[in-house]
Amino acid sequence: MALQTIAVIGGTGPQGKGLGLRFAQHGHHVLLGSRSPDRAEAAAAEINAKSPAAPRAQGGTNSDVAAAADLVLLAIPFAGHDEIVGCLTKALAGKIVISCVNPLAFDRSGPYALGVDHGSAAEAAAVLAPESQVVGAFHHVSASALWSDRPSLHHEDVLVCGDHEEAKSVVQELARSVTGRRGIDAGPLRMARQLEPWTAVLISINKRYKTQSGVRISGIDGSH
Amino acid sequence: MALQTIAVIGGTGPQGKGLGLRFAQHGHHVLLGSRSPDRAEAAAAEINAKSPAAPRAQGGTNSDVAAAADLVLLAIPFAGHDEIVGCLTKALAGKIVISCVNPLAFDRSGPYALGVDHGSAAEAAAVLAPESQVVGAFHHVSASALWSDRPSLHHEDVLVCGDHEEAKSVVQELARSVTGRRGIDAGPLRMARQLEPWTAVLISINKRYKTQSGVRISGIDGSH
Repeated sequence: MALQTIAVIGGTGPQGKGLGLRFAQHGHHVLLGSRSPDRAEAAAAEINAKSPAAPRAQGGTNSDVAAAADLVLLAIPFAGHDEIVGCLTKALAGKIVISCVNPLAFDRSGPYALGVDHGSAAEAAAVLAPESQVVGAFHHVSASALWSDRPSLHHEDVLVCGDHEEAKSVVQELARSVTGRRGIDAGPLRMARQLEPWTAVLISINKRYKTQSGVRISGIDGSH
Repeated sequence: MALQTIAVIGGTGPQGKGLGLRFAQHGHHVLLGSRSPDRAEAAAAEINAKSPAAPRAQGGTNSDVAAAADLVLLAIPFAGHDEIVGCLTKALAGKIVISCVNPLAFDRSGPYALGVDHGSAAEAAAVLAPESQVVGAFHHVSASALWSDRPSLHHEDVLVCGDHEEAKSVVQELARSVTGRRGIDAGPLRMARQLEPWTAVLISINKRYKTQSGVRISGIDGSH
């Protein structure tokens, strides 16, 4: 795919930093955002130390990196999601916005899905950023696998949902930087209601089997 | 696992008949239930014709087969679920009850998850049959793959959830008759809130890719 400038909102968290690393290693210019620009710069320095040959990642405030990017990844915790996205509406307008947000909570029985206004975090983002093309993706890849030295997470699939076909196709291509394969089109944006809480199933399996589980879709050949 | 007498409530539907076939082929005594005993007998005859060497499957009313079985699979459409299960409470008492019910509906955008009292069909069954050990499993295997001549659906995983560890373990073993591998423990019964509607994702993928997709969990070796 064409190389892009990708902003990661919540880029100092493990999921955002891990995806930022993979995007940078595939030649994209990565801008990590945080409420604290110092923490964002520190996270960018970690990516640069790990991938000295990649384009240099940079850090900044969430609003600065959102404004400067072609494509924006929301990798923020669900707590605070609406407030953060609501402040970025203008910077996100006209852009592809990817949500990998998983609205989960934990109790003694393990992880469970939170009830979410509008059905899913991705649909909430679409309401808060109505001039953006919101796509749900990258919910299931584990942060530690992303941050590891494994060249590609071949054993996992990235499932992509959205109501804008072209934007979805861009994100399906971007998935190659993580799994080495095009992401799978899982349907309209409302499918995020299933993709997001599926992470609870994987976390539950990880706990029981002391592993890092991932999801793979069978019945689709590698060329999809 | 020990051979059992397994009743399939809704055994004339494609999912129930397909799972019944697999159970029979692995030596279990299968009783197909239906509101119409004639239709149940006809479905049992189809299984017997396909697997002449297996123990003979038999048909009967839902309540007769539930009363006669050691283990009961609910394979009914979600419409009518509560009424049917509510009538079987007594016959199900003390038994393992497996729910593979997927509460889905369809509109122009494809499949979507229905809102369900108690969170999921499996949890609703647990409320309606409080003296049973309800386990959720077999939601994702496709009916046509089950009914095909493929010896085992090796490319798929059966995910199993439940609050009764022993019952869950029995169902994990039963999954071998479908995939050739022990089913994966996905956690407590409430995880059915994710397992059931995940079928919408697979149906959506099937439509887009003109395939029969299935779910496979990576990161767990074959010996689980």
